[in-house]
This record gives sequence, C-alpha cells and structure tokens, in this order.
Amino acid sequence: MESKRLGGQTIILKNRPKIISNSSIVGQKESQGPLGEFFDIVMPDNLWGEDSWEKTECRMLKEVCERAIEGANKKNTDINYFFAGDLLNQIMTANFTARTLGIPFFGLFGACSTMTESISLGAIMVDGGYADNALCATSSHFCTAERQFRYPLEQGTQMAPTGQWTVTGAGAVVVSNEGNGPSITHITTGKVVDYGIKDVNNMGAAMAPAAVETIKAHFEDTGRNPQDYDLIVTGDLGRFGRELTIDMLNKEGYDIASRYIDCGCEIYGEEQDVQSGGSGCGCSAVVFSGFILKKIEEGELNRVLMGSTGALLSTTSTQQGESIPGIMHLVVIEKGEG
Amino acid sequence: MESKRLGGQTIILKNRPKIISNSSIVGQKESQGPLGEFFDIVMPDNLWGEDSWEKTECRMLKEVCERAIEGANKKNTDINYFFAGDLLNQIMTANFTARTLGIPFFGLFGACSTMTESISLGAIMVDGGYADNALCATSSHFCTAERQFRYPLEQGTQMAPTGQWTVTGAGAVVVSNEGNGPSITHITTGKVVDYGIKDVNNMGAAMAPAAVETIKAHFEDTGRNPQDYDLIVTGDLGRFGRELTIDMLNKEGYDIASRYIDCGCEIYGEEQDVQSGGSGCGCSAVVFSGFILKKIEEGELNRVLMGSTGALLSTTSTQQGESIPGIMHLVVIEKGEG
Repeated sequence: MESKRLGGQTIILKNRPKIISNSSIVGQKESQGPLGEFFDIVMPDNLWGEDSWEKTECRMLKEVCERAIEGANKKNTDINYFFAGDLLNQIMTANFTARTLGIPFFGLFGACSTMTESISLGAIMVDGGYADNALCATSSHFCTAERQFRYPLEQGTQMAPTGQWTVTGAGAVVVSNEGNGPSITHITTGKVVDYGIKDVNNMGAAMAPAAVETIKAHFEDTGRNPQDYDLIVTGDLGRFGRELTIDMLNKEGYDIASRYIDCGCEIYGEEQDVQSGGSGCGCSAVVFSGFILKKIEEGELNRVLMGSTGALLSTTSTQQGESIPGIMHLVVIEKGEG
Repeated sequence: MESKRLGGQTIILKNRPKIISNSSIVGQKESQGPLGEFFDIVMPDNLWGEDSWEKTECRMLKEVCERAIEGANKKNTDINYFFAGDLLNQIMTANFTARTLGIPFFGLFGACSTMTESISLGAIMVDGGYADNALCATSSHFCTAERQFRYPLEQGTQMAPTGQWTVTGAGAVVVSNEGNGPSITHITTGKVVDYGIKDVNNMGAAMAPAAVETIKAHFEDTGRNPQDYDLIVTGDLGRFGRELTIDMLNKEGYDIASRYIDCGCEIYGEEQDVQSGGSGCGCSAVVFSGFILKKIEEGELNRVLMGSTGALLSTTSTQQGESIPGIMHLVVIEKGEG
C-alpha cells in the first residue's frame, strides 16, 4: 500500500478533499470587530433566548453545523462522521450537538486547536475513502469559558495586559470527496510542547513554542518555505504570542512576518478593550470558516498554511502548580482547481 | 478511489492493521478481582509515590504507553500518532503524557468510550497508509474521578445500588501495518443516544441504549449476527446496564446473552463491594489490553466484537438538569493469520 507520509509530522492528501461549505456564528462583540462583515450569523446578545450560556453555546454549534450541511446540499444522513470538541469540561457542547445531529461522532479535545484537529481527521477520513463527507466543527462562548476557567462574570474581574478575550463564536465546515471548494492538501500534526509557562494570563507565550515547532516541522517535512504560502495563520496567540512566534521562527531561519496573521489579533479592534487579543476554540474557527475560506474562494488567496493553537490546562492543573503545555495542528488549504 | 464504507456506520479495514503490543496497569482493588492475574503492572497503592492522584494517573498512562512501545520493539520516534483521552477536565492526563512522549497527538474525549475511539482512529490511520504505527491509550483513576465528578473522598459517601466504581487503570496498544498480532477488521462508530436518564448513579441505564444502537447498526451494516462472534464486549454498563442491553437487543431480534460480557461486570468480584460494577475509561482499556487481547493471542477467541461505552456528562450539565447521553464505538478484532 502506498504511504502518504511525507516524513516527520506531515502527510499528503493525494485525493485533495474539498471544503464544500462553511458556516460561522459570532456574538455582538465579534461582529463589531474588523472582520464583523464576514460572519454568517450574529447573535443579538450572549443568551440568544436560552436560559443558560451553556445552552446558548450548544445552539450556536448546532446552528453552524446544520447550516454547513445545508450549504453543502446534504442531509444529516449524508454526513458519515462528525468531528468536534469545545472548551467545556467533558466537551458537553459537542456531545449535545452530536446528539441532536445523529451523525456518528468522534469527540475531540484539543483546547483552542480543535478546529484544525477536527479538519485534519475529517480530511483523512475522506481522503482515505472511509467517508464521503465529514463535518468538522468547534465553538466557544466568552461566558461559559470565563466562569468555568476563571471567575464568576458578576465579579467584573479586570484582564491582565497579556490576557485574551474568549471569542463567542462557532464554525463548521463540510469536507467532501466531491464538489467544489478549497482543497486540503497536507496535514502537519502537532506535538505537545511545554516551555514551563505557568501564567494563565499569558497563554500566548504558552502556545507560541508549539506554533513554532509545528510550523518548523511543516517546512522541514515538505521542503517548502514561507514564500510558498500566501498566508500563514495561527489560532489565538494574541499580540504577545504572535511577536514571540515571529522572533522564534526568525532564529530558526524562517521569516514569516510579511505573510503571517494570528486570528486572535485579527478578530477584535484595538479599541475593543481585549488586551492581547481573542482566544477560544471559536477564534480560529470563525476566522477560518468566516474569513479565510471566503478569501480563498474569491481568489485573493491561493495557498494558506492554517493552524489552530491550543493551551492545555485545567483549573486543577493550574491549582496544582503545573505548567501550561501547548499544541498546534496545521492544514494546508489551496484554491480548488476549475 | 475505492470506498471502504460498508454502509451505515461501519467501515472495513482491508489492510487489517495489527495490534502488535499491549500494556495494562491497575490498582490494588482491580488486581484482587477475577482478572487480576492478567494485568501487567499492579500499583502498590493509589498514589504510587506521587504527591497527587492526578500525577499518579499521568504516570500510569505514561507507563503503559512506554511499555507498549517497548513491547512493539519500537522507539517513540517510530510512532507516528498518539490517540488518547481520559475523564479529567480538559483531558490533562493525556495532554501531559503526550508532552512526555513527544509523539504527534490527537486529543480525544469520549468519556469511557475512549479506548475503542482511540483504536478506531489509530487503525484507520494505519489502514489508510497515513501511519506506520499508532499508539492508542486511555486511563482512569478512582480518586481523581471521584473527587472531580462526585464527592471529596474524605467524605466516605456510600454508593447507590446502581452506582459503579471507577476503575484505577490504564491500557495502551500499538497498532501497526506490519508485525504479528490480532487484526482490526471493521469499525462501527457510535452516534450519541439519549433516553432521558438523569440519574448520575445509574450510568449503565444511560449508556445501554447507545450500546444497543451501535451493536444493531454493526449487525445491519455487516450482515453478520451474534453467532459470527466468539465474544461480544461492552465497556462499563455494569450489571443493570448489561441486562438492559441483552433485553433490548432481544427485542431487536439479536440474542447475544450466551456470548456477551461487560468489562464493568468482569473486573471486580461480587464480594468487592462495587455495587453494579466497574466504570471509567480504564475499565474497558485494561480488560481489553490485559485480558481479551491475550485470549485472542492464545487462540481461545478468534473473533471479538469489542465496544467501549461512554456516558457523556459533566458536573455542570448535571447541575443544570440535563440528561445523560451515551455513546459506544465498536471495533472487530480477529486472530491474525500465520
């Protein structure tokens, strides 16, 4: 059997699975940022008529999944696998959404790296002939994350300068073996990297080494360099993490600065009082499905190296004095032929 | 490209990836049960010299992973992907283990269904030529799970008759495209099923409908029936869930009783005061890697339908009055040729 391994951490998808549809939803704050116009649905407020923020997040994820399926002209029964996860303990948002959709389900946890984790696995299933269609999705909600990981919202805690604001948003894509849309050509899967950062208010620094490690592995495995990409994207490193990533990759001999964005830096304006930027599974999910995919479809971008970055911590690990490891998964997206 | 889909929820792995090594570790209580002799390592106590149970669980998972890699005569760098998850919030046990191992990592959350979830994905990666070797593992620890999901251990809370005891155990297997060992031939991926059970002390009832649904789907997709298997296994339904599963499948026309075991019923003796039986990711992980795989290797079993069952709940979902959906993933394991 023919190997699809390029070596190292990278595989090549010779059948070039297509992203045939996408959907994104955000909250008010995200709609007021520089990318606001690109998102498909904007919620009127953080509750959207539900009686808990957790229910709202479930409805957000369900909504983008159903719209992505509909946008692909498919029914739920046409989708062979659903890959999803979220930030909440035991990924309850994804579990309840999988219950509603009734699609065979692989639950994931990759913290904020979940979008490219789900796309990686969905694309492999399609490329290998194990699935005709796979649905890949994730979500986060400022209010559910804040009260689970940090403080009661009622407390009105101030953010540290290196802190990041959890994006209220969900994104979903359908990956398919037929149809039109951007192709997924390579997958570079991340290792867990830990530089010993223990500051939960500086997750950009915790995740930057993982971003650097996976990007470097990708270039080494493929023989490519930054100039081979129109855009290189990380998930939610924020302003500090983004600068760290540029510096660290420079030292490795890769200059990405002129073609590099971090979703966490793009989603909010500087006037929006979010300190270092956005974070959360939803951050790279909505920037990718709302903005980047549309720019590829419109022909403004031809080849994108897309990464989502995750900081791996729990309240227990933090209370026990553990450091915060990070991970990043990369996928290469190209404008489809013809 | 040739489809590997049998239809419905089942795929066939034509390259028959092999389980070339396995490793299991348990605590004292599990070592005193009927399967005690089959487990590779028995910890002297619940802490094993660490200063928190969470650290102990990390060491357990690391230990079985390293032993499985060693048992396969491989080095960490020979393993292309690590698929793992656990019960703890944000799967910190698996994250820290992935950090130690340095293998490209896909984090999973499937609650107690994680063992067959990880094997499903690892086997697909190998079968499709995306990996030469994949490491698939999971763990649970009575003390970390009890204090996260239920009560402080110091409180000495009594168990309900339908309650189940979280197994202290971890299991790991290496799936490979060459070498000797039992083959993985089919994968039936579960949907999330919810019959509205809200009793956190009756997770067998919450999971049984998911077990029934996936087993039924497997028989329908493959055209097989219970007689085609030497053994049909579910993960941790316990005594009540096991009976429910037999009854519900009988009503669907499938009589599995004479060839069916539940890992949660097998791992502890009736005198061990565990009420309805064992549970936790480690339950099916150690029974599968410690007991079932050895029985296949010894030739006592030729073809096994192996499922791990997960109850999808968090303390937040329970406090908010949500019901407990379940999921089960099935893999077919056959004695290797030659």
